[in-house]
Amino acid sequence: MISETMCRLGKHKSVIREIFEYSKERAAKIGAENVFDFSLGNPNVPAPDSVKDTIRKLLDEKDDLYLHGYTSAQGDADTRQAVAEDLNRRYGTHFHADNFYMTCGAAASLKICLTALTVPGDEFLTFAPYFPEYQVFVETAGASFRPVQTEEGTFQIDFEKLEAALTEHTKGILVNSPNNPSGVIFPEAAVQKLAELLREKSEAYGHPIYLIADEPYRELAYGKDVPYLTKYYDNTLVCYSYSKSLSLPGERIGYILVPDELEDCQDMYAAVCGAGRALGYVCAPSLFQHVIAACAGQVSDLGVYRENRELLYGSLTEYGYECVYPDGAFYLFVKALEEDANAFCERAKKYELLLVPGDDFGAPGYVRIAYCVTTHQIRRSLPAFRALAEEYGK
Amino acid sequence: MISETMCRLGKHKSVIREIFEYSKERAAKIGAENVFDFSLGNPNVPAPDSVKDTIRKLLDEKDDLYLHGYTSAQGDADTRQAVAEDLNRRYGTHFHADNFYMTCGAAASLKICLTALTVPGDEFLTFAPYFPEYQVFVETAGASFRPVQTEEGTFQIDFEKLEAALTEHTKGILVNSPNNPSGVIFPEAAVQKLAELLREKSEAYGHPIYLIADEPYRELAYGKDVPYLTKYYDNTLVCYSYSKSLSLPGERIGYILVPDELEDCQDMYAAVCGAGRALGYVCAPSLFQHVIAACAGQVSDLGVYRENRELLYGSLTEYGYECVYPDGAFYLFVKALEEDANAFCERAKKYELLLVPGDDFGAPGYVRIAYCVTTHQIRRSLPAFRALAEEYGK
Repeated sequence: MISETMCRLGKHKSVIREIFEYSKERAAKIGAENVFDFSLGNPNVPAPDSVKDTIRKLLDEKDDLYLHGYTSAQGDADTRQAVAEDLNRRYGTHFHADNFYMTCGAAASLKICLTALTVPGDEFLTFAPYFPEYQVFVETAGASFRPVQTEEGTFQIDFEKLEAALTEHTKGILVNSPNNPSGVIFPEAAVQKLAELLREKSEAYGHPIYLIADEPYRELAYGKDVPYLTKYYDNTLVCYSYSKSLSLPGERIGYILVPDELEDCQDMYAAVCGAGRALGYVCAPSLFQHVIAACAGQVSDLGVYRENRELLYGSLTEYGYECVYPDGAFYLFVKALEEDANAFCERAKKYELLLVPGDDFGAPGYVRIAYCVTTHQIRRSLPAFRALAEEYGK
Repeated sequence: MISETMCRLGKHKSVIREIFEYSKERAAKIGAENVFDFSLGNPNVPAPDSVKDTIRKLLDEKDDLYLHGYTSAQGDADTRQAVAEDLNRRYGTHFHADNFYMTCGAAASLKICLTALTVPGDEFLTFAPYFPEYQVFVETAGASFRPVQTEEGTFQIDFEKLEAALTEHTKGILVNSPNNPSGVIFPEAAVQKLAELLREKSEAYGHPIYLIADEPYRELAYGKDVPYLTKYYDNTLVCYSYSKSLSLPGERIGYILVPDELEDCQDMYAAVCGAGRALGYVCAPSLFQHVIAACAGQVSDLGVYRENRELLYGSLTEYGYECVYPDGAFYLFVKALEEDANAFCERAKKYELLLVPGDDFGAPGYVRIAYCVTTHQIRRSLPAFRALAEEYGK
């Protein structure tokens, strides 16, 4: 009598969340230091000092009504202004406060955008491998989810496959670069080609095809440029979260950017506000909105991720694992050493290695290793990775 | 091409939010102290000192991963345990941590419950006057919204009207006591009668009818008992927020309670988890989850609300306004001095009195006055209320 869909979604948790729970149980049994949990994208570097300093300063100087009261539904005006200025400084854009709608993180941003856009019959594409919750968000918004395979071996856009997947029902494409789980970044040439194709198809179908840029990993790009999509394609919505850049994943703070260039941008912004309202979002958490007003331009010290990448990529490829060298994010997406990645992950558990099978990412036969852990953990886990490879005769 | 429903919801903001925006504009023009804004339920008393103390202590003692990292989707276990213990202490209940799912506030709690429950064809009832967003949450969850008028002059449950409204499609009833906007509390006798009727009807229709208790005002009851609904009716879901009790409305922190007594409670809890996931809620804000773990049993100093109630109720009835004496919450629900409450509110604006017309609350001809403001503001506004009444020949 209750919703079967919701019951199923609750029982069959995201595979990542399920491993996260298993990990906590296991840690309680054998000690956290003996569980090599590579399952969750939970940043392990602290927030910049300025975050703590800002919170203390706010507590000392501001009254409670300002700190903890409701903000406007779209977010505190100073916060949105600070976000606009930060992006304009970094990307030479011309955003203003009213382009932004503050949200409870990237998941909320995505769900709100999809709800704002979807009419019955719509299809959303994304490039595989992809973050598994995309499917949940798209389908429960009432649209169809259509993953498009990328190029074998590089995870870059396969334009032939993309063109074959586009139909008059395509409402938008979810783009995630740097990518979770592959770490791949789409370079400028690919973005330009993508933009051209979508302009052509929008023209042909007589309606815009939207890009939805899911950008929590934007700042986690090790020396590579991450093209800012609104500069290449007008009908782009940007979904952002400070989870990774400021190491605040639990605080649920991010935004949706609706640029002026987007077709009927006023209506789109209204639909974003309406969707936020319908989904039960009243405003983004107020204290952390004020933190963002002060810290929008800051980034946690991400050096450890780079170091982890080198150590893990170097060691694993030496042991006989295969994977694409990741330019960004904090994941290695490694070929499982047997066809069934689930079976491989189960075998890895024997060594207390918690890896995520790629099936739910639309890439069976792969596993995701989140290296947002201490370098110490990675070093301690290497014998386990080696022993696991040896079990497969590597 | 985008969702018309969402666009409409975004453009036609909640009337309260619209007045909130008008108020900010007006304050910028003539000074905040000259705008008598009674529109928003934004608590004006500070959070208890323990909230600030707890935040400072957490910042000093805990690492960032604990403070700001993801918690389990259902919420930090210590937080849920603290919430359970607080309720058990106050109401003699026997809840445990796993009965609770932490949320981003009451709106999220309601939307998640409605999404978890709804299957096509469902109807939800509520008692008018009601919080206007109920209609948005119910309808966008895919169900029909059916308000039931209460008794003229008391706003208590009219059981004849309720019985007439119940059908085999009734999935649940939203109960809000103390009530926004009337301040009315449903006494024990009414709750018992309601529970009996619903047991009888559930039996007759062959499926449970759920009570959804929306309880942000539970602690704002001036000397009256507020019956705890799970003790009277098994199929009760409680939606709670710390917005009012701890004066933290902007922080978006609350919970859903799924008691063991509820039919198929495991499935219900799973559906709540699934709905939270589908709606883009990853976890409730982590720092404030930890604050709740320490402060669940605290309440802001609510004495000022009581003082405001006496002053405002006394003065307004003296000037010739009619209203039910409110036992709880921080609202007076006053009869407009002309038939059209919207016209009355427009006229009140001339005196810089910002009141909310009752139409969206399902009670045309009334206006809501939120007295969660300073007593000083109320004192200063009294001549305006008197002049407004005199305009109507009172």
